[in-house]
Amino acid sequence: MKEINVKPAEGRLGVLVVGCGAVATTFITGVLMARKGLAKPIGSMTQYDKIRVGHGVDKQYLHYKDIVSMADLRDLVFGTWDVYPQNAYQAAVYAEVLKAKDIEPVRDELMAIKPMKAAFDKNYAKRLDGDNVKDCKTRWDMVEALRADIRDFKEREQCDRVVVIWAASTEIFVPYDAAYHKTLDQLQAAMKADDREHIAPSMCYAYAALEERCPFIMGAPNTTVDIPAMWELAEKTHMPIAGKDFKTGQTLVKSGFAPIIKTRNLGLAGWFSTNILGNRDGLVLDEPANFHTKEVSKLSTLETICKPEEQPDLYGNIYHKVRINYYPPRNDDKEGWDNIDIFGWMGYPMQIKINFLCRDSILAAPLLLDLVLLSDVAVRAGRYGIQRFLSFFLKSPMHDFTQGEEAVNNLFEQYTMLKNAIREMGGYEPDEEID
Amino acid sequence: MKEINVKPAEGRLGVLVVGCGAVATTFITGVLMARKGLAKPIGSMTQYDKIRVGHGVDKQYLHYKDIVSMADLRDLVFGTWDVYPQNAYQAAVYAEVLKAKDIEPVRDELMAIKPMKAAFDKNYAKRLDGDNVKDCKTRWDMVEALRADIRDFKEREQCDRVVVIWAASTEIFVPYDAAYHKTLDQLQAAMKADDREHIAPSMCYAYAALEERCPFIMGAPNTTVDIPAMWELAEKTHMPIAGKDFKTGQTLVKSGFAPIIKTRNLGLAGWFSTNILGNRDGLVLDEPANFHTKEVSKLSTLETICKPEEQPDLYGNIYHKVRINYYPPRNDDKEGWDNIDIFGWMGYPMQIKINFLCRDSILAAPLLLDLVLLSDVAVRAGRYGIQRFLSFFLKSPMHDFTQGEEAVNNLFEQYTMLKNAIREMGGYEPDEEID
Amino acid sequence: MKEINVKPAEGRLGVLVVGCGAVATTFITGVLMARKGLAKPIGSMTQYDKIRVGHGVDKQYLHYKDIVSMADLRDLVFGTWDVYPQNAYQAAVYAEVLKAKDIEPVRDELMAIKPMKAAFDKNYAKRLDGDNVKDCKTRWDMVEALRADIRDFKEREQCDRVVVIWAASTEIFVPYDAAYHKTLDQLQAAMKADDREHIAPSMCYAYAALEERCPFIMGAPNTTVDIPAMWELAEKTHMPIAGKDFKTGQTLVKSGFAPIIKTRNLGLAGWFSTNILGNRDGLVLDEPANFHTKEVSKLSTLETICKPEEQPDLYGNIYHKVRINYYPPRNDDKEGWDNIDIFGWMGYPMQIKINFLCRDSILAAPLLLDLVLLSDVAVRAGRYGIQRFLSFFLKSPMHDFTQGEEAVNNLFEQYTMLKNAIREMGGYEPDEEID
Amino acid sequence: MKEINVKPAEGRLGVLVVGCGAVATTFITGVLMARKGLAKPIGSMTQYDKIRVGHGVDKQYLHYKDIVSMADLRDLVFGTWDVYPQNAYQAAVYAEVLKAKDIEPVRDELMAIKPMKAAFDKNYAKRLDGDNVKDCKTRWDMVEALRADIRDFKEREQCDRVVVIWAASTEIFVPYDAAYHKTLDQLQAAMKADDREHIAPSMCYAYAALEERCPFIMGAPNTTVDIPAMWELAEKTHMPIAGKDFKTGQTLVKSGFAPIIKTRNLGLAGWFSTNILGNRDGLVLDEPANFHTKEVSKLSTLETICKPEEQPDLYGNIYHKVRINYYPPRNDDKEGWDNIDIFGWMGYPMQIKINFLCRDSILAAPLLLDLVLLSDVAVRAGRYGIQRFLSFFLKSPMHDFTQGEEAVNNLFEQYTMLKNAIREMGGYEPDEEID
Repeated sequence: MKEINVKPAEGRLGVLVVGCGAVATTFITGVLMARKGLAKPIGSMTQYDKIRVGHGVDKQYLHYKDIVSMADLRDLVFGTWDVYPQNAYQAAVYAEVLKAKDIEPVRDELMAIKPMKAAFDKNYAKRLDGDNVKDCKTRWDMVEALRADIRDFKEREQCDRVVVIWAASTEIFVPYDAAYHKTLDQLQAAMKADDREHIAPSMCYAYAALEERCPFIMGAPNTTVDIPAMWELAEKTHMPIAGKDFKTGQTLVKSGFAPIIKTRNLGLAGWFSTNILGNRDGLVLDEPANFHTKEVSKLSTLETICKPEEQPDLYGNIYHKVRINYYPPRNDDKEGWDNIDIFGWMGYPMQIKINFLCRDSILAAPLLLDLVLLSDVAVRAGRYGIQRFLSFFLKSPMHDFTQGEEAVNNLFEQYTMLKNAIREMGGYEPDEEID
Repeated sequence: MKEINVKPAEGRLGVLVVGCGAVATTFITGVLMARKGLAKPIGSMTQYDKIRVGHGVDKQYLHYKDIVSMADLRDLVFGTWDVYPQNAYQAAVYAEVLKAKDIEPVRDELMAIKPMKAAFDKNYAKRLDGDNVKDCKTRWDMVEALRADIRDFKEREQCDRVVVIWAASTEIFVPYDAAYHKTLDQLQAAMKADDREHIAPSMCYAYAALEERCPFIMGAPNTTVDIPAMWELAEKTHMPIAGKDFKTGQTLVKSGFAPIIKTRNLGLAGWFSTNILGNRDGLVLDEPANFHTKEVSKLSTLETICKPEEQPDLYGNIYHKVRINYYPPRNDDKEGWDNIDIFGWMGYPMQIKINFLCRDSILAAPLLLDLVLLSDVAVRAGRYGIQRFLSFFLKSPMHDFTQGEEAVNNLFEQYTMLKNAIREMGGYEPDEEID
Repeated sequence: MKEINVKPAEGRLGVLVVGCGAVATTFITGVLMARKGLAKPIGSMTQYDKIRVGHGVDKQYLHYKDIVSMADLRDLVFGTWDVYPQNAYQAAVYAEVLKAKDIEPVRDELMAIKPMKAAFDKNYAKRLDGDNVKDCKTRWDMVEALRADIRDFKEREQCDRVVVIWAASTEIFVPYDAAYHKTLDQLQAAMKADDREHIAPSMCYAYAALEERCPFIMGAPNTTVDIPAMWELAEKTHMPIAGKDFKTGQTLVKSGFAPIIKTRNLGLAGWFSTNILGNRDGLVLDEPANFHTKEVSKLSTLETICKPEEQPDLYGNIYHKVRINYYPPRNDDKEGWDNIDIFGWMGYPMQIKINFLCRDSILAAPLLLDLVLLSDVAVRAGRYGIQRFLSFFLKSPMHDFTQGEEAVNNLFEQYTMLKNAIREMGGYEPDEEID
Repeated sequence: MKEINVKPAEGRLGVLVVGCGAVATTFITGVLMARKGLAKPIGSMTQYDKIRVGHGVDKQYLHYKDIVSMADLRDLVFGTWDVYPQNAYQAAVYAEVLKAKDIEPVRDELMAIKPMKAAFDKNYAKRLDGDNVKDCKTRWDMVEALRADIRDFKEREQCDRVVVIWAASTEIFVPYDAAYHKTLDQLQAAMKADDREHIAPSMCYAYAALEERCPFIMGAPNTTVDIPAMWELAEKTHMPIAGKDFKTGQTLVKSGFAPIIKTRNLGLAGWFSTNILGNRDGLVLDEPANFHTKEVSKLSTLETICKPEEQPDLYGNIYHKVRINYYPPRNDDKEGWDNIDIFGWMGYPMQIKINFLCRDSILAAPLLLDLVLLSDVAVRAGRYGIQRFLSFFLKSPMHDFTQGEEAVNNLFEQYTMLKNAIREMGGYEPDEEID
């Protein structure tokens, strides 16, 4: 067994969530309920999954916490920022995700969580109109104000460590621009120059978090941490970063189903994915500029799983289309419909249709818990920069595209990466190949 | 690298298919077309898949034939038995699976394949009424007649090796009976005593094949080779056996989809599977006694994948129901509809529905090719008895239940077993764990 | 305008529901809530629908109550029988159909509705095990006891009129037997002889109701009132009868969708219907003998709509299959999946799939309201015997099959019959043809 | 019985189809095959439907041709225009709608149908690039050239009467502009001035047809005949016009299914419709300007069926969304997925999903036949201008919106209109109300 280098998870772990909407309140409420024994944190890998360590006679199946030191649910402390001033109780009720019986027992704790003023720019999310926002002159001012928030929270709540996670809306698409996003110097300069075109508010959150020595996780499809400048900052501050876009509904299914087709060496002619959703996330995505951010995030999946260059007969001509539609009658209960055109023996076509009636926040909540806890483990294990082992939880996993790296989108390969990282941090051999 | 012990695949490989219906003719036609370059054997692992061998700098991705010596499509010779006397061309046209343009180019070769008389007992498949049947007094006579058929075929077609594969109908259910099926002596005695209750005709095929030193593969859900007596015969004759039930439509999806849920640690409350199919297989299954054989074969899948005993919160109370319905309007284009009730964070329910419009014979054909070629590899590698590495291709994989062994139904674990076996036979390290 | 002969709906209308389960309590709760203005009786024809009366310049669109005198929701008084002793509040909570917020405001009224002991025979519904049952020696005793119940209820609640409606489980199938069910004398004799094979408990309810001058409505697929003996009793007592089987989910869709295909003169090759449901109704139907009753009721639909004899090219060869599956994970939220195989120009096939995620009790409740109110109108209009105009609400509408009469299953023709009857009772011309 | 005024259908009826693609060739091939007894014109009202005439003892059910004189299939003669020069045989093979066995028997007849040069403007359909186009200086030149084509065809083929029907692509959206489209004078002036913004090529076809005394039918969603100027021309020339957009897949279902919900007085919260299609029609619609034309045509359906103003509780807040997606893997086999959110008793929500795997041309072909034959009947009956009785066949039926008229979209009301018109032209009483 190798030497173990993970510092123990002592003291309180602060969790600062950007956005206090459906996703954030479902996550927080669930944790509060679970630690009272009133709900089960189903879907959470850190709470349920067991992985093999060792081989042959040494083989064991262990929970993550039995491999690496991990913060207990009782040690978590929550804070949040939001453009709307409602406290977490009010926001949870408004979201209509959870039933009253699943909120009321922790009403007081939720009411105590009052959003700090958000760093916000309406140009990045036109459909939002909250006014609980900071009055900042420049992007750099935003960074400074957010850093102060983090420090205040940490002191007030007596936290030993803090993780910052974005669970707010999708911003409009900010493509990578080598003139502004390549180096940390460029990024700082643009912030100080208040360059509102190239600097999204989310970048200020990430910047502030890293400077305050907090890991930062991007749960929306924003390109916030998908830029080398931010990687440089993460290296400099020795902090982990992860993103992007919580893998909840349709992409979760796609990243698991495409491997079935691939594994069976069946051909794939086309994949049409459509979504209907009616919560605030859907409203924001109804704006074409915001949708574009999402679409870019969702389209890459199939190619990296099927590897057309290796099996051109099977995957050389896939027609992949993704549509997202705002449809208010469903609220948070989003629904995906996938139509998959495959072909088999002698090229004969067949069809598979998958209809997923899911719940956005219910699927997202355990991802937040796992990303927070595992980022915290990474800090204590001395891992920093892009955390590829967290790809499992993300729709469009980070990777260093400047080096020609490709994202790993296959759910089962992502799982192997996750297991290997846990093993390695726990001092075991990271003994699975990603085939 | 370990020593390689697989004898080279020299000479002609005879393929004797029990049943000359939709599945058999689609398989044979496809192989004949493929070796003329007129069709692609899509869905076949042996023709398309590549697997990793070696680690680190030695890592390579190779086709199976580049790891172990494997019969070429050009070396295959086909024969068949059927209760209907139509030749393979007539049967292929009657089946309405393939278009004329995909049959006509090999018309002459197909016409030359005339079914030998079947060993048949109408009590085992009431809905069939063909009269191309052997006139045998006892089950033992059936064995003797089938052995003669195999020898004649081998000599006539100048084959070096022969594989026998069952692609005929589902028989009525024959449960394992320790008084008749446990030892080879019991089995022989029952055959000689013409015990028609305990000896299905399919058992005569298996017995004859093994005695003639041919591997035997059971493609229907018949319990033919799921009995210790047959394993004893396989051991004695040093022949591989495999079964049962080609994994084509709904179970293929189930064995791949259940792992997605399991991997994500989502809960599973129920899984309802219904099927409509209208070919001769469906007609036979419309008889309750024959359906029962199928149902037993299909129900075991979920439990072995989800392992309720390890995650009772998630899988402790799964309601699993499977229905098969004869529905002639579709003919060979069978269709599955699955409704999956999952639950997530705090127990909130969600639904997934999968509608698979598939084609039975198109999905089955590559399985026949792979099972035949890989059984032949196994013979040459000196492997005999139950071939668990072929579980990947089968709905209800063989396992020694008398030793408490469990079937492996998870598609991805089955794939690992397949890869490890190929690696091992090829002299590489079988280096993947089945987690 | 013709003379109007409907007596005014004065005084209180008693509603006696057989069964105090999900359907009954949803119906009662909804009425109680609606008359407080706290809920809307959506889906009810009598509360929402308007129909045309008159032609040309005299054309008007009127609510039913503005055409014929109709009991107001405020005039309804409820009673019930059940094998379980729980009051309507307890039963409503147990059923898990309605949310607490939709029950609590009428809690006291519901608690006051305590089921009378049921006339029950476990052989007719093996899966039920309640013990709130009458102790009767013979079927005739059941009749006497039920008559007493009705009289007591009427007096206690000071009702002017009473309607009895069956919303209890499906009994095992009792086929029409001309030796027992043809004449009223036969029926009486069988009841007195306690012939438990030919006399279902439900027949005792119907008999008692009619003798007490109450209309009787059969909401399950039981053949209770589908026998000439019962028609004779209805004639004798001048009471309306209606049945059978509330038209809720899949059959509602089928009776509306088949007319689309028929109207467009598209061909129909097959229709496969499967259902999953998990409430007590589903549990009872899981027993083959009870399912058979349901299946017979559901299969007749297509033939009477499509009229194969008139369009043999289009409807001469329909393969129709109906399956019902008990599937507890859904409870009252039953779900239908229909697969429809149509064909068009030159015989080319196409497919339509309908997936109906419905709620049994939510769809049934307005039917109870309408059937009760319209039966009461029929009484006051002097209509008795089989009420064909109520076919709209029923899966397997009554008709005098001894005269070769056919059921009308086309939803739009049923609607025409309903409108014509309302018009006629209201003194208007019943001026629509049923084409 | 009224006097009958329909002139007999003597001599040959010319059918000039604009566009010689999948729809046109499927239509023509089917008619040619049907009149040889080699195929059945399924889906055609004029060939299959029977309607009631008379009441009571006089009631009869008659085929249309037995009510009004109608051209026989043997009397039809076909011509076509197209931007691609391939003859109808080549185009039918290219379209891949029909199997070879359904084309070959009429190969020679199809080869003889060679498209005349099209009047085309690439700005109206950017994705099309054929070069079999007329060289016209102005829109007025197009009209003149098309008129000459019609006269030549009529003489060459010795037709007594000719009908012109548009089965070509969707053009970009041309909104009604009162300055150009209101009067015939305006229209002529714009054509002569070669106003390419306000005059679509399709208008030249319609203009030419009417001037040559041919009825004109618009099968695409183009606004061609939805302008008062064209109505004036139809009045002047005493010619019928009809449009727009053949009612094939999703809208056919919608116009039949919405009446089910409406008839049952269930509430409707939302209706989401998405389509995938891969033929040339889909390619053209992938251009946003062309899609807009289609979307406008498809959105009006629900409102006119549900009449929210009369039932605000039920239909006052419907969220209706329609999406069309180009998806080449399916070619002509388009597919619709509808998700319908309804609500019932006390407002409880339920869902219906309809998945229609249809074939565009197979559904369209009988519509062309019926529209052609019935337009010809209308001419002989002296009917001219907008033919509302043809609404049954059209997605967005014509109506005089300048007079506040509303389209009738309910399939069953459209059917009533159709039947009444046939009855009236046949001298029977048009005796059904459209309720």
